[in-house]
Amino acid sequence: MLKEECGIMGVLGAKEASNLVYLGLYALQHRGQEACGIVSLNRDEKSLKYYDHKGFGLVSDVINRSAIDSLKGDLALGHVRYSTQGGKLLQNTQPFVFKTPAHGPIGIAHNGNLTNANDIKADLEKKGSIFTTTSDSEVFIHLLARSQKQSLEEKIKDMMGIVRGAYSLVLIAENKMYAIRDRHGFRPLVIGKKDESWVVASESCALDLIDACFVRDVEPGEVVCFKRGEISSFFAKKKLEKRSFCSFEPIYFSRPDSLVDNQSVYQLRRKMGEILAQESHVDADIVFAIPDSGVPVAIGYAEQSKLPMELALVRNHYVGRTFIEPTQQIRDFGVKLKLNPVSHLIKDKRVIIIDDSLVRGTTSIKIMRMIRQAGAKEIHFRLGCPPITHSCYYGVATPKRKNLLAAQKNTHEIKRILEADSLAFLSQEGLQQALSDVKKQSFCYACFNGSYEEPIFTQISKEATDPYGPGVFAC
Amino acid sequence: MLKEECGIMGVLGAKEASNLVYLGLYALQHRGQEACGIVSLNRDEKSLKYYDHKGFGLVSDVINRSAIDSLKGDLALGHVRYSTQGGKLLQNTQPFVFKTPAHGPIGIAHNGNLTNANDIKADLEKKGSIFTTTSDSEVFIHLLARSQKQSLEEKIKDMMGIVRGAYSLVLIAENKMYAIRDRHGFRPLVIGKKDESWVVASESCALDLIDACFVRDVEPGEVVCFKRGEISSFFAKKKLEKRSFCSFEPIYFSRPDSLVDNQSVYQLRRKMGEILAQESHVDADIVFAIPDSGVPVAIGYAEQSKLPMELALVRNHYVGRTFIEPTQQIRDFGVKLKLNPVSHLIKDKRVIIIDDSLVRGTTSIKIMRMIRQAGAKEIHFRLGCPPITHSCYYGVATPKRKNLLAAQKNTHEIKRILEADSLAFLSQEGLQQALSDVKKQSFCYACFNGSYEEPIFTQISKEATDPYGPGVFAC
Amino acid sequence: MLKEECGIMGVLGAKEASNLVYLGLYALQHRGQEACGIVSLNRDEKSLKYYDHKGFGLVSDVINRSAIDSLKGDLALGHVRYSTQGGKLLQNTQPFVFKTPAHGPIGIAHNGNLTNANDIKADLEKKGSIFTTTSDSEVFIHLLARSQKQSLEEKIKDMMGIVRGAYSLVLIAENKMYAIRDRHGFRPLVIGKKDESWVVASESCALDLIDACFVRDVEPGEVVCFKRGEISSFFAKKKLEKRSFCSFEPIYFSRPDSLVDNQSVYQLRRKMGEILAQESHVDADIVFAIPDSGVPVAIGYAEQSKLPMELALVRNHYVGRTFIEPTQQIRDFGVKLKLNPVSHLIKDKRVIIIDDSLVRGTTSIKIMRMIRQAGAKEIHFRLGCPPITHSCYYGVATPKRKNLLAAQKNTHEIKRILEADSLAFLSQEGLQQALSDVKKQSFCYACFNGSYEEPIFTQISKEATDPYGPGVFAC
Amino acid sequence: MLKEECGIMGVLGAKEASNLVYLGLYALQHRGQEACGIVSLNRDEKSLKYYDHKGFGLVSDVINRSAIDSLKGDLALGHVRYSTQGGKLLQNTQPFVFKTPAHGPIGIAHNGNLTNANDIKADLEKKGSIFTTTSDSEVFIHLLARSQKQSLEEKIKDMMGIVRGAYSLVLIAENKMYAIRDRHGFRPLVIGKKDESWVVASESCALDLIDACFVRDVEPGEVVCFKRGEISSFFAKKKLEKRSFCSFEPIYFSRPDSLVDNQSVYQLRRKMGEILAQESHVDADIVFAIPDSGVPVAIGYAEQSKLPMELALVRNHYVGRTFIEPTQQIRDFGVKLKLNPVSHLIKDKRVIIIDDSLVRGTTSIKIMRMIRQAGAKEIHFRLGCPPITHSCYYGVATPKRKNLLAAQKNTHEIKRILEADSLAFLSQEGLQQALSDVKKQSFCYACFNGSYEEPIFTQISKEATDPYGPGVFAC
Repeated sequence: MLKEECGIMGVLGAKEASNLVYLGLYALQHRGQEACGIVSLNRDEKSLKYYDHKGFGLVSDVINRSAIDSLKGDLALGHVRYSTQGGKLLQNTQPFVFKTPAHGPIGIAHNGNLTNANDIKADLEKKGSIFTTTSDSEVFIHLLARSQKQSLEEKIKDMMGIVRGAYSLVLIAENKMYAIRDRHGFRPLVIGKKDESWVVASESCALDLIDACFVRDVEPGEVVCFKRGEISSFFAKKKLEKRSFCSFEPIYFSRPDSLVDNQSVYQLRRKMGEILAQESHVDADIVFAIPDSGVPVAIGYAEQSKLPMELALVRNHYVGRTFIEPTQQIRDFGVKLKLNPVSHLIKDKRVIIIDDSLVRGTTSIKIMRMIRQAGAKEIHFRLGCPPITHSCYYGVATPKRKNLLAAQKNTHEIKRILEADSLAFLSQEGLQQALSDVKKQSFCYACFNGSYEEPIFTQISKEATDPYGPGVFAC
Repeated sequence: MLKEECGIMGVLGAKEASNLVYLGLYALQHRGQEACGIVSLNRDEKSLKYYDHKGFGLVSDVINRSAIDSLKGDLALGHVRYSTQGGKLLQNTQPFVFKTPAHGPIGIAHNGNLTNANDIKADLEKKGSIFTTTSDSEVFIHLLARSQKQSLEEKIKDMMGIVRGAYSLVLIAENKMYAIRDRHGFRPLVIGKKDESWVVASESCALDLIDACFVRDVEPGEVVCFKRGEISSFFAKKKLEKRSFCSFEPIYFSRPDSLVDNQSVYQLRRKMGEILAQESHVDADIVFAIPDSGVPVAIGYAEQSKLPMELALVRNHYVGRTFIEPTQQIRDFGVKLKLNPVSHLIKDKRVIIIDDSLVRGTTSIKIMRMIRQAGAKEIHFRLGCPPITHSCYYGVATPKRKNLLAAQKNTHEIKRILEADSLAFLSQEGLQQALSDVKKQSFCYACFNGSYEEPIFTQISKEATDPYGPGVFAC
Repeated sequence: MLKEECGIMGVLGAKEASNLVYLGLYALQHRGQEACGIVSLNRDEKSLKYYDHKGFGLVSDVINRSAIDSLKGDLALGHVRYSTQGGKLLQNTQPFVFKTPAHGPIGIAHNGNLTNANDIKADLEKKGSIFTTTSDSEVFIHLLARSQKQSLEEKIKDMMGIVRGAYSLVLIAENKMYAIRDRHGFRPLVIGKKDESWVVASESCALDLIDACFVRDVEPGEVVCFKRGEISSFFAKKKLEKRSFCSFEPIYFSRPDSLVDNQSVYQLRRKMGEILAQESHVDADIVFAIPDSGVPVAIGYAEQSKLPMELALVRNHYVGRTFIEPTQQIRDFGVKLKLNPVSHLIKDKRVIIIDDSLVRGTTSIKIMRMIRQAGAKEIHFRLGCPPITHSCYYGVATPKRKNLLAAQKNTHEIKRILEADSLAFLSQEGLQQALSDVKKQSFCYACFNGSYEEPIFTQISKEATDPYGPGVFAC
Repeated sequence: MLKEECGIMGVLGAKEASNLVYLGLYALQHRGQEACGIVSLNRDEKSLKYYDHKGFGLVSDVINRSAIDSLKGDLALGHVRYSTQGGKLLQNTQPFVFKTPAHGPIGIAHNGNLTNANDIKADLEKKGSIFTTTSDSEVFIHLLARSQKQSLEEKIKDMMGIVRGAYSLVLIAENKMYAIRDRHGFRPLVIGKKDESWVVASESCALDLIDACFVRDVEPGEVVCFKRGEISSFFAKKKLEKRSFCSFEPIYFSRPDSLVDNQSVYQLRRKMGEILAQESHVDADIVFAIPDSGVPVAIGYAEQSKLPMELALVRNHYVGRTFIEPTQQIRDFGVKLKLNPVSHLIKDKRVIIIDDSLVRGTTSIKIMRMIRQAGAKEIHFRLGCPPITHSCYYGVATPKRKNLLAAQKNTHEIKRILEADSLAFLSQEGLQQALSDVKKQSFCYACFNGSYEEPIFTQISKEATDPYGPGVFAC
């Protein structure tokens, strides 16, 4: 599975801002389970104070009632993250806060990956800046602090003139909230409204939970500034012709109940399933998905191919982080902890298994074997997206290319490795067709075709040209 | 939702007995999330020692590597529980261990509910026994300790002559394991084999995870004694004609990948859905379930009624125990944390919603309202079992009768309360028909029809005749 | 150092009983640092409920505000303990509570050691009693539960007819508190009064802290019964002629600000120092103590011998339980963590070092060496009590006899082992003379002369006659 | 009591550097109990890595075996602290580490207080530096990072040219350790040697514990550079004529077994007591100290005045941080938790009580009252130093001037407030005389006479001239 990246939630102008942010993070938990944090701003008596609370783990573990109570103020910002360049250090946990003489404390949360962070960092360190995290996102802070412009808006412009790559960014400062997206619009960021307060979030499902209504996406290259009752916006540079929204958001990352430009992610996945069935029909007895992300694809596939859809793999809801494996061999142990087949459905049947995507293939091999063990007569494996052949440099944690199965092997070889009776991916054209309902959008397919819109700098560029280079981690 | 009760797992003759028990408990986690424990026996040098580890919370939270390492020996017993008579006290957490001069330490784990526990307890206390827990299950221990018989087998017989009600029981002592079921066979208990070692578990899914094969059920009234390489069995009393296996096991408690007497639970639920569709057909656009237990019923229903089945309610996988609700109103807050509708699927549609059962109805009301809010034109609510009108005294935690919606209101009233356009339960005949595939079994339907097979004693009997008496909690 | 044993504190009739007990335990902390607990009784509405809170560690670590708040009622009982027969198990932590049909919950706390506990236990187990701790003190509970007498007073009499050995015992039940001492009066127990409430405690320093006034000692063999406003008392058996109060209480266990029968412990120790100086005068430059218990002895010694007293060993106040020792050798590491000499005071001086007693001698050896290293010209070691040559079976944790240095070696040999220039113990006559101010008391000197007042049973008796038998641990 | 400030310990060239630092911090624990930390440097394979471990609480609570194991390398630095300008934030806990492109990670630990920190900070922030702590000590880091000099030595010189105030500083970087003191030498810093490794520490008692020998003090204004086997040194500026070593180090802060310029602190305190007795003799029956710091003063006093010295106040060794006070009044509760009088010594006696110093007087009032309650006929209170009338800006946490009792009231008034029969302070001349044995030193007496050697800047200067200004906290 590709690792999900990060989720952001900001609220301005609500009495219980930090509580709403907490709920939003909870809805965005699937975007990052490693760490989370919330920062709030509050004008006490005469001075503007900030409050923060961060920790490793799930939102429900890290943030409790007393944390919420301590996060005072009507302006709050939260972040969930999967992993960053900097490894597991608490100081890497966002949102970051830094204090400025001119604007007081500024909170910042980032989803994405800068492609020239190393170059910027080296330059600033030579000038005496001290970096206290190993996260790319700290670069934003130092650029803002170094800018000699007067207003925060102009400092943001300065900063956007220097950084390159993927970023959806939310800033809180004084009594304002800023929502910012890079020019390509790689990562999502939506605007919502709840009564008199403004909300920004990575996905619309976070708006649903708190009863906020969806207003619109932040546009690529746009800086939206929210104040109590007001919203204004500017573009730091000229707009690009082409948008490059991450196609993996509808394929896998986004929750099925979220919207991509007013299209339901569930429906987009169902569509992928329908087209996949058209492209690679096979005669079989039942269709079932590897839960949960594959299910809407399987429903589309089953309907199109007029085959019965079953839930033949039962998912254990209590899967935790680490397991104590006995020394003695248990067949396909890791997979069995999560999934158990309903053997009566599979025995002596020709089955079509649907998954959303294929990354390393290690889990798929075990699932195939488990299904075979359960007595399947024929196994036909179908993937809801094209072969992933390239690393992402725009905020998705992808393994090294040598570990991307489809970067190393062709479809025939993969079929043999997985011991499937047949194997088919959704074609790139099929994917584009499925996504064509999203009228206003165009998508980034770099992980399927290596066509990168944004140049990659320094070390990163070396990795990009080295098929065996290290994978890139991001937030 | 009716609260699940308890799960038991025992292993004899395996080098890593406690690790296997741990995995079994993990597969049985759905049967009890409140507390868990493992006890093991090990013959060190000359003496037989026991080791135990218990705690509140999920198996993955309570039991870690060092706990497993400390649970030495090839004979181990584990327990997960939901709740007991005695409330939240660590000493109530099973398995219980007690030391006897004759047999050394004995470990015991119980799933069920005794109907004459209070009477036995009062009698023993008068004679000087000191009870240290508030759990019914402690009665077993004192009866064994008081028996003046020589062998453990005969002491077990003495004990079974006194206790009444529901019990599936596993005992470990010396180098033996005993699996025991009450004469009615209310609660499940299955026997498995993994290489040279014996396994007993509440459900077959626990055998699957550790690669053990299913051997057979323990019979009602049977005491099975396992020794290294041997298995023997006896009946303490004459067998009853009629079995009374809990019908809620196939309806809701058991995992869909478990077996009930060689029948797949998934298939039984699918069958309930088919019969439900025959009994209460309605014209509609889509069918969907309240995840997860309703899904197999919905699949059966959709197939029978030739309507498309969708996953129109997205479940949040990161739901934790407690949530911090803001003071300001959020519509249907509690439900939304768990479920969010895919509005595109529901808007302007006639929908059929399937749930496994209806207990208090409080959550159902909120779900109906949320679906209506999402734009459904018509809502038809279908339940996979008959109306629950009576409390269970045999090990299922049921609310007081006055809180059982179907004990207080008829179907028409419930429809109005839930604001559904139509409402239908599976009939009791339909349920019996769906379960008729389980050839060797007969079932207890007391919660649907109040026909209790086993008499209820003392205080409990008062509650049974008082329709507003307190509910019964159990393990 | 001999290990201190246990401390008890009970309060009846005070609104904040558990808070007062907590403070009393805090003052008695020196009597046991391993574990502690408090139990309270409260009559809620119609029923009598108990509350308890226990844990490993110091009072200030285990008991917090919310624990105190939960310990409702005006009748409370607490216990600190060093160690018991049963090792480190939470269930061994006192006070014990058990529920009786006749009297409701009974709380019990014990300081001492029974000499026939094993025999009683074996007998009761045969009859079906289940012991859940490995502590001797559980015997009291089962004897009370088994007694077929009607009143609690008579059950206590029954119990006292069976147990042998050392016990100061406090019981709380219904609305009464009982304070009980064995016929020999081995261990202390004092009565105090604070306004309208009654207090019992192991030492008078616990009364001081809570502003209670000292009333009197509980007499050997006496059962004192406290009710609101009333106090009554009886003797279970005929009184013994001879009392045997533990002489180690004034020598080492009791706090210097406590009283032994109206005599100040500080003054008794000072007296020991004076007599020691008379008995074993030596010419020297300074006198100093091994802090802290040796200091009053040193003050008496210095005054009598007209030598200057200094604090030449500085004690580190932050000594915790465990230390991380480097692999590379540090001279006298363990001692240095606790004590550091003021070298300027010692260099080229003839010094007299005072300690309260000599047990294993291992620490003394290191201290002698450290003092020598600091440049002392002559070292004269003086002990405030006679050589300890026998184990205690009455509640003091003594090492095996083979580990008691004075049981194995004579004074001359010990002097050589410690590398002292001279060595002297207080004589037994000297000790008796120092204690002669305590008019009403006579003392147990068994650890100095092996003359045991109370017979020792079963296994324990074997150990008593075996000079290399295991030491006895107690509470 | 004046709050102690901070303690530093550094070790270079020892295999178990972090373990030795840990022990050193343990010996310096009295200098700061709020938080502690250790940083180490290790050259792994090709790169230089740092490791750190920090936390709130005592050394023995924060640092465990696995922390020590993780702190690899033969160069380590530790810090204990009481409190800082910045309040209770973990990021304020020292040592600080920052990464530099030129020198790799640098660790730094500071004892003292800068008088121009705010001015420097404001200036650097304007230039784009981001401060992540609220501690003054972070200023050192930014000044080093900003310096455009090549070598670390020259950067240190640059830094020392800018900062003003009190600082004893230890730096570790690459394979070197630097020990630095400000020109006045306000705070202590000593050099030791253990076999081949160099040690620096705030007090010599830390050397004793690890068997290192005392080499010499770091000189005021000196930068000592340690490399494996080498030691070199330079002065950043011209030396000052006058040294200003904190007189409160011998009075109260330093452990009695530490040395001040080769003089024993114990002996200096004893001398203060002797002179105090000469200055303010009074006829009485006994002399006793408020433990523990007053004891050497009392010994000196008693000897000089030929009166018997007793330990009439027994200190509870188990005093923890917080206590749960009952609602009902307990006389002098707070004091009694720590100290209990031995009434037999005090009753009907004329007593002289010795304390090291008088700050707010709140505790003294309670002690006086408690002694009176214990029956003292006359109470004569004697203080081992002059009246404290001014705040310290050089690293000692002093309360606001309005809370310094001696800044507000004269001796006669204080006597009345404390309800003493007589009261006397050591005179400033007497103190100077007592310290005159320390030949090479001269002392800072600013807290007694307001004569500050180093100017105070910005806000701080306002406070200095405002007698009711806020107190200054430091490290």
